[in-house]
Amino acid sequence: MKTDIEIAQGAKMKPINEIASVIGLNEDDLEYYGKTKAKISLDVWKRVKDNPDGKLILVTAINPTPAGEGKTTTTVGLGQAMAQIGKKAMIALREPSLGPCFGIKGGAAGGGYSQAVPMEDINLHFTGDFHAITSAHNLLAAMLDNSIQQGNLLNIDPRQVVFRRVMDMNDRSLRNIVLGLGGRMDGIPRQGGFDITVASEIMAILCLSEDLMDLKERFAKIVVAYTYDGNPVTAGQLGAEGAMAMLMKDAIKPNLVQTLENTPVFIHGGPFANIAHGCNSVVATKLGLKLTDYLITEAGFGADLGAEKFFDLKCRFAGLTPALTVIVATVRALKMNGGVTKDNLGAENLDALAKGIVNLEKHIENVGKFGVPVVVAINRFPTDTEAELQFIRERCAKQGVEVALSEVFTKGGEGGIELAETVLRTMEKTESKFKVLYDDQDSIPLKIEKICQEVYGADGVSFTKEAETAIKKYIDLGYGSLPVCMAKTQYSLTDDPTKLGRPAGFTITVREVRLAAGAGFLVAITGAMMTMPGLPKRPAAMNMDIDAEGKITGLF
Amino acid sequence: MKTDIEIAQGAKMKPINEIASVIGLNEDDLEYYGKTKAKISLDVWKRVKDNPDGKLILVTAINPTPAGEGKTTTTVGLGQAMAQIGKKAMIALREPSLGPCFGIKGGAAGGGYSQAVPMEDINLHFTGDFHAITSAHNLLAAMLDNSIQQGNLLNIDPRQVVFRRVMDMNDRSLRNIVLGLGGRMDGIPRQGGFDITVASEIMAILCLSEDLMDLKERFAKIVVAYTYDGNPVTAGQLGAEGAMAMLMKDAIKPNLVQTLENTPVFIHGGPFANIAHGCNSVVATKLGLKLTDYLITEAGFGADLGAEKFFDLKCRFAGLTPALTVIVATVRALKMNGGVTKDNLGAENLDALAKGIVNLEKHIENVGKFGVPVVVAINRFPTDTEAELQFIRERCAKQGVEVALSEVFTKGGEGGIELAETVLRTMEKTESKFKVLYDDQDSIPLKIEKICQEVYGADGVSFTKEAETAIKKYIDLGYGSLPVCMAKTQYSLTDDPTKLGRPAGFTITVREVRLAAGAGFLVAITGAMMTMPGLPKRPAAMNMDIDAEGKITGLF
Repeated sequence: MKTDIEIAQGAKMKPINEIASVIGLNEDDLEYYGKTKAKISLDVWKRVKDNPDGKLILVTAINPTPAGEGKTTTTVGLGQAMAQIGKKAMIALREPSLGPCFGIKGGAAGGGYSQAVPMEDINLHFTGDFHAITSAHNLLAAMLDNSIQQGNLLNIDPRQVVFRRVMDMNDRSLRNIVLGLGGRMDGIPRQGGFDITVASEIMAILCLSEDLMDLKERFAKIVVAYTYDGNPVTAGQLGAEGAMAMLMKDAIKPNLVQTLENTPVFIHGGPFANIAHGCNSVVATKLGLKLTDYLITEAGFGADLGAEKFFDLKCRFAGLTPALTVIVATVRALKMNGGVTKDNLGAENLDALAKGIVNLEKHIENVGKFGVPVVVAINRFPTDTEAELQFIRERCAKQGVEVALSEVFTKGGEGGIELAETVLRTMEKTESKFKVLYDDQDSIPLKIEKICQEVYGADGVSFTKEAETAIKKYIDLGYGSLPVCMAKTQYSLTDDPTKLGRPAGFTITVREVRLAAGAGFLVAITGAMMTMPGLPKRPAAMNMDIDAEGKITGLF
Repeated sequence: MKTDIEIAQGAKMKPINEIASVIGLNEDDLEYYGKTKAKISLDVWKRVKDNPDGKLILVTAINPTPAGEGKTTTTVGLGQAMAQIGKKAMIALREPSLGPCFGIKGGAAGGGYSQAVPMEDINLHFTGDFHAITSAHNLLAAMLDNSIQQGNLLNIDPRQVVFRRVMDMNDRSLRNIVLGLGGRMDGIPRQGGFDITVASEIMAILCLSEDLMDLKERFAKIVVAYTYDGNPVTAGQLGAEGAMAMLMKDAIKPNLVQTLENTPVFIHGGPFANIAHGCNSVVATKLGLKLTDYLITEAGFGADLGAEKFFDLKCRFAGLTPALTVIVATVRALKMNGGVTKDNLGAENLDALAKGIVNLEKHIENVGKFGVPVVVAINRFPTDTEAELQFIRERCAKQGVEVALSEVFTKGGEGGIELAETVLRTMEKTESKFKVLYDDQDSIPLKIEKICQEVYGADGVSFTKEAETAIKKYIDLGYGSLPVCMAKTQYSLTDDPTKLGRPAGFTITVREVRLAAGAGFLVAITGAMMTMPGLPKRPAAMNMDIDAEGKITGLF
């Protein structure tokens, strides 16, 4: 089989205005970025806002393993399959981050015959949204340090600056720096550092804002530092929100591209799934729901983090009602959850599958707690045996959930027809009774406890002294009613990445609580969160090249 | 009169494909960025490369003063005027840098009724070229530090890393930093810092490269550090040039926009005019010459820096022959050169004018040394008196140079017809006998001496011990035949910004010599060069805003 980039480069893309016309958009609605990418004018919203909403389908997964689950691939493939069976559907994805491309990870717009294209552009600068975020973020950071330098009228304590800088690059050397060195004209020396752009609060805000004015208001609320008296200092006090919103005037517009089969795709925004909520933008999702009958989207990591945040943060803020959730799993990954090592996944192993399937079962149970119907998609590999597949079907049936096999990686939309039909049948049969897990009025510890106990299956939560102090401070400052964004390892239901399957008898330790006042949530951190990745010994960048005709190799 | 942004927002822009068709480009040649910006496919070159070249007209200026000269405005106005009198002309400008917008400077795409539009887009992210440069630059920096971190197989001395990081922001706190703090997994602690993106060697390379392969080859030659043995370490040794070129695949394509009067404009690249050469890209200039009869372009700062580097670096590398040079001056600025303070420029003052005009005379003389015919453009102000203008005419006539009055700021192209006609007449009368000032084979000190003595009027050059050591090192390493890019204050012909007019009896001190092996020049530094600006006490960003309809205010 060809590589992802070879398949992508062989795509028969249609001009983007033809794709747009499929979802009722015309020339005036489009701002072209080349021939196969366009931003959608925000004026479209005024025209379509009274349309009935299509059905919102979330694609999530079991806890990720090195075996790979193929969540984005399934999302794209399901969209293509819907189109193949004559349904009006589109897909809403996150924008991939540039930095990780150069490390190990490679691109992130699906795989095999279920990809969004133009793959190279989507993975490189795309329409510049992430660069706009980087600029807006770093403008605020520069204005903050400038305010300290120029007389410090806001009485900012340089030791209590909480707003770091960002760069869309894997650059470990910038994690911890001392800046402002040199002399009197070169700033105030203090500790600081860079995060990768996807970890920026600006990114989270972009993805949760309803429109440009909402974006600007949220920018104004960002807490960047504290005064010597312990009072929060906001971007609004620095007078930065107008210029920041100006920098984001195009970034807030959703980007339209297509799949390998010409299904329309919005790719817009891409916040981290640990310290942020890990879903594409509210603007794209809400617009997509007005333009099609079925909008298929995904959330980061496994369902314990991705789906929980999709429901409790994105849907809560935006008033969205998901109609169905697809949980993606593979036989191989379930066997890994059952203790099989990566080298031995090819052999049939029903015992391991029985031990590992509890992870899937827990995620099915969890989604049920939000009142959303579930379909399980098994992303099929050639080594999967019929006995293994049958075992999964039987176990899921006990939970009242249907299983569909998916071969979208190798077959494109055709390989997802069984999944599409199962999804449609389930939605007809079962209405979503969506509800969030906790109330805004619950105390901060109670919100965290509900997530840890009901979703992760923990016995309880312990808070470090530091976390307790932070929670008290945020309550005092009036942030107590914000929902909570959990930052936890994606590899386990616990806060220990080595504990696979469905662990029991554990507690979650909240080590730190951060405030994202602009995004509108508190971040509960349960482990070492890496917000600036590094490059590996041999970066993927070393294999990348472009020839005289502009053909790219080594980007995967 | 309206502000620049008000005029720009009232522009009657044509769709960019209509602008393109004026210069013989068709739909297939364009990659749209919205409706009024497009990148030009590099394939166009293959089609037009055997066309005869149009005439290349450089717009430069006297040494800049706080009174303002209006060089970009004159460049745009002259292009508009050419079109008004039926000539096939286009304009090639530099892209403005984002950072300074937020400080004091404001935008940089002309002014009044001689502007390139869409002004907001040009001044903000435009087509993402600067962001691509930032990414390519910082990828190389990350790969460099990663190589040290991951076993340091290239034996890089962390104390001798010469490649800094960049950001397109005025952020003085990043000038001098210590990075790599934290611990064993967080890089090697060392001193470093950030420059503004326009100061990146990647920017200089973009602007001097003939095509994508030339760009990649130049990237490979960048010297980023030295080993413990004193040997240079290049981007090529780090294996970075392919990925860097990939990131620049769109940035290398010229950007087409239009003026307020719908004259076609290429805006492409914008290197610093002190540590780099300060002109738009060779790709845009060469393509423009094939598409029109007259290509009007500008160079940074005054003629001592801008024109000299345009001739000795850009034209030398690209084999260009400028047909004529316009030197822009104002009566006010000449009076400032004659000792008048900014508050007293409104009054007629022939004595001060007589004392200050020597600055203009020296620049006329200098351009003559390159064999290029000159026209002087007086950017007219309401306070200019006829006696003052007549005085300038007479003095220029003694040098055999015609003076044209320009009112392009207030009247657009119509206000530049006298200038356009003078330019055309002069080119008919006088053929360019362009030659560069020094030979590649001249020694490094001789190259610097020729520039300082013949262009600046210095008695001689003194080199610091540090500069002498650097020169010796570069000769030993085989870089002795590179041309020299002078980094000197733009405010004076000397290296002392307070010495206006036409100083005599001075020497230039070369304090430091840097290597830009990818760009292909050595940088001789004669004073404190600021490569990362700061924000002022009240940043312009604080006045910027955008409303719900997307209308921007405060960007000027």
